[in-house]
Amino acid sequence: MPKKLRRKQYLLQEGEVCKYISFVSKGLLKSYNIDDKGVEHMNMFAWEGWWTSDMNSFLWGEKAFFNIDVLEDAELLMITLADYEAMTLKVPIMDRYFRILFQNSIVTKERRLVSSTTHSAEEKYMQLVESNAVIFQRIPQNLIASYLGITPETLSRIKNHTASHKQS
Amino acid sequence: MPKKLRRKQYLLQEGEVCKYISFVSKGLLKSYNIDDKGVEHMNMFAWEGWWTSDMNSFLWGEKAFFNIDVLEDAELLMITLADYEAMTLKVPIMDRYFRILFQNSIVTKERRLVSSTTHSAEEKYMQLVESNAVIFQRIPQNLIASYLGITPETLSRIKNHTASHKQS
Repeated sequence: MPKKLRRKQYLLQEGEVCKYISFVSKGLLKSYNIDDKGVEHMNMFAWEGWWTSDMNSFLWGEKAFFNIDVLEDAELLMITLADYEAMTLKVPIMDRYFRILFQNSIVTKERRLVSSTTHSAEEKYMQLVESNAVIFQRIPQNLIASYLGITPETLSRIKNHTASHKQS
Repeated sequence: MPKKLRRKQYLLQEGEVCKYISFVSKGLLKSYNIDDKGVEHMNMFAWEGWWTSDMNSFLWGEKAFFNIDVLEDAELLMITLADYEAMTLKVPIMDRYFRILFQNSIVTKERRLVSSTTHSAEEKYMQLVESNAVIFQRIPQNLIASYLGITPETLSRIKNHTASHKQS
């Protein structure tokens, strides 16, 4: 099912059941949870060629942990669980496709876990810049800070520090 | 390749290249990284029927982030990347098998991410007890505390508190 969403619209709100896994053909979305104090914690960003969903809710019909909303006007292709299952049974190469996607996602999540326990804020920032240089330009700084688990002020300090090092 | 390892032996040490993904046919292993201060941070536990590896290192030939060692004497079936790729190409149902395994692993990792930002230590503990009641008996308390990102003292306090509530 194709769907268009404008900036700031929601694809999913926490507490709903997430009925779709969505392919991003255009635009940029963020998925995040909100803590008791109202602070947003980034889970991931999804842009052209990526899939986004709340996997726990999508697979098990539980209430979604995550909110997913739109950072840049988006065009999506949304697939229900029944269609997802039917598609992988009918076209086995789709199992391979998703196996490789999920495998890469695990690598990203494990890198991030290790980074959260062992890297300084500066190292986390540099790692992200190196691995995601292009997309990095499209995501607001406060969301990058949230993704890295640091304050916007710390991120700003690191960026200035890095820039001044490049100039010298 | 079958392999037996005794308690406290390493399957993998950080900095090595992880050449295998290993199926646990018997025993219990832990994978973890170590921060600059020498503190261990649990990534996951693997017991009968699970697979363990450092996926980033296994797939991309980079140095392993994780150490993997043995908590209970283990019997493993170890597969190289070449064999893993050949197996999934020859037997497409293996793509499906790993697709579903990795999908579940993503759910676990996303639950854990949300839990780390929104749940109290007590909620994290109760969630783990409910989802992993059996294996929970086999893992030392200090490692469970590390997995939950809390101190052993906090875990001990929660357990006493929970136990006294059950009695009353």
